[in-house]
Amino acid sequence: MTDQQTVWIAVDAMGGDEGPDVVVPALQLSLQNDPLVQIALAGPASLGARISSLPKALQSKIELIIAEEELPADASAVQAIRHGQRSSMWAAIGRLADQGADAVVSGGSTAALMAISRQRLGMLPGIERPALMGAIPTTTRVVWMLDLGANVNVDARRLLEFAHLGNVGFSVLEQRQPRIGLLNIGTEPGKGPDVIREAARLIDAEPSLEYAGFIEPDQVFEARVDLVVCDGFVGNVLLKGAEGAVRLMSESFRQTLKGSLAGLLARSRVRALHDMLDPARHNGAPMLGIRGTVIKSHGGSCARGYARAIELAALQARNDLVGQLESKLWESY
Amino acid sequence: MTDQQTVWIAVDAMGGDEGPDVVVPALQLSLQNDPLVQIALAGPASLGARISSLPKALQSKIELIIAEEELPADASAVQAIRHGQRSSMWAAIGRLADQGADAVVSGGSTAALMAISRQRLGMLPGIERPALMGAIPTTTRVVWMLDLGANVNVDARRLLEFAHLGNVGFSVLEQRQPRIGLLNIGTEPGKGPDVIREAARLIDAEPSLEYAGFIEPDQVFEARVDLVVCDGFVGNVLLKGAEGAVRLMSESFRQTLKGSLAGLLARSRVRALHDMLDPARHNGAPMLGIRGTVIKSHGGSCARGYARAIELAALQARNDLVGQLESKLWESY
Repeated sequence: MTDQQTVWIAVDAMGGDEGPDVVVPALQLSLQNDPLVQIALAGPASLGARISSLPKALQSKIELIIAEEELPADASAVQAIRHGQRSSMWAAIGRLADQGADAVVSGGSTAALMAISRQRLGMLPGIERPALMGAIPTTTRVVWMLDLGANVNVDARRLLEFAHLGNVGFSVLEQRQPRIGLLNIGTEPGKGPDVIREAARLIDAEPSLEYAGFIEPDQVFEARVDLVVCDGFVGNVLLKGAEGAVRLMSESFRQTLKGSLAGLLARSRVRALHDMLDPARHNGAPMLGIRGTVIKSHGGSCARGYARAIELAALQARNDLVGQLESKLWESY
Repeated sequence: MTDQQTVWIAVDAMGGDEGPDVVVPALQLSLQNDPLVQIALAGPASLGARISSLPKALQSKIELIIAEEELPADASAVQAIRHGQRSSMWAAIGRLADQGADAVVSGGSTAALMAISRQRLGMLPGIERPALMGAIPTTTRVVWMLDLGANVNVDARRLLEFAHLGNVGFSVLEQRQPRIGLLNIGTEPGKGPDVIREAARLIDAEPSLEYAGFIEPDQVFEARVDLVVCDGFVGNVLLKGAEGAVRLMSESFRQTLKGSLAGLLARSRVRALHDMLDPARHNGAPMLGIRGTVIKSHGGSCARGYARAIELAALQARNDLVGQLESKLWESY
């Protein structure tokens, strides 16, 4: 693998709550950080004016793909496929499908991103639906978790599939093999629903996976494992719940210290800590199982977070995550 | 209803990580706070020495029920029924079954508490299994949620049942009717698994319930509704995940401010905030649907938390939660 390699990232300018107001500043950050990144930006012609406000040296690294339409933030898969063909998301994914880019990043609807990616890029052999892998921050390091909402009703074999996808995805991102935990509401072998106990047997039986047993939700925040496997509903609940708790906590600290000397002295540290621990800031969720590098950015991400998603996309493309997944899945099955 | 009424609380001295080391100090707090509480304490004869170390005026309010055995913290339902008959938990529940107490509190295994309660106390008509209702703290007030782990595979009718149980339980505890939200990973009507969409239709169709629609996990911490309905697996994940995130956050604040002036000045406030927002401190989860007032205390609760669970038990007994549930469920079905 090499970090020093030119990569083209197709970016959906319109996905996300703020659209280009976040995406264009994010491009500036990304292009400044990594001189070998090139951007194919999909969105309306009016973006041209915004691009020309960037430093000259960066402008030449951005190519505009004109797509005047925009998918709504809650677009369903059906809506995306039927009515989304002129959308910025479709155009960005299309650029990857036509091999004019190495990866795609969008902050738009997860369901739409998944549907269009499946349609335009296809799935890896043996994988039925993609899984979304995301980061849960802890004080020592980030714990990765999948699925985060792409799959709400799963059986034990799908959970095994998530373990395989996550195992390879993690290895590419972190350059080591993860210890894998299966999310459950107890750690004793008999605990939890049948599907999870069956998945534990399947994952434990795979020699290529380093299985560490059940992990309880609060233990995720202690980084007891590197990678957490769960169904998309539960993963989404854990991630969004943690976001809510962290937001509540740091907002409360601000309130309780407001107007005090302690508050004045602690302000910057409280903010830094919130930035470190808020899952929303650890932006960029790889959509694994698609035949192509697709990164979902959080809809409410700031420019710095969006730039982080672009960085992840570049890292995955340079390390040929898709090729590695394909060969490893081949070995596993 | 009246607050001023003598109530007998049967307490399992051995449940919980610390057993009598937490329970006996908790009794002292409870008896001092509420002069009309009487305790039937179930546990080994050796507890006598501990009780005699309490102030004389309080000792006379505690009756010891000798039960030398103790159920393990992870006791299953089967274990509890087959081998638990000499346990302190069985003795405490037995006292309620024999009408020698008005409520029971235990910090022992949830599965065991549920199984013995069903066996000795029975279920309310039409209710198949009890649901555990617990509190999620926010800055403004507490949000109640059920189920928290007693039921891991539920259908839409069970979720409707939780809504009815929680509706009455909340009304008794808070003296007003709750706005009810159904936990989902999106708020649009088409979101989430079939069982949740079906449950939404059922709950929405009930004139006796004030249904406020889907609620997302992070919105729970903003107190958008008063009562959250979900299956026990998901509820447990949300609650324990929030505990983990809050613990991580306050521990990190302590670390980041350590040795600084800001830290010195903020220390007591940080601790107070942690105490306010840690779900583990809002102790006492009513087990609804049992024909009897049964409160599950958090296994890791401190004495103050355990006293809070006893307080909840007294409140429910005085307000005849079980009688109210029985008559309201009769109206609802």
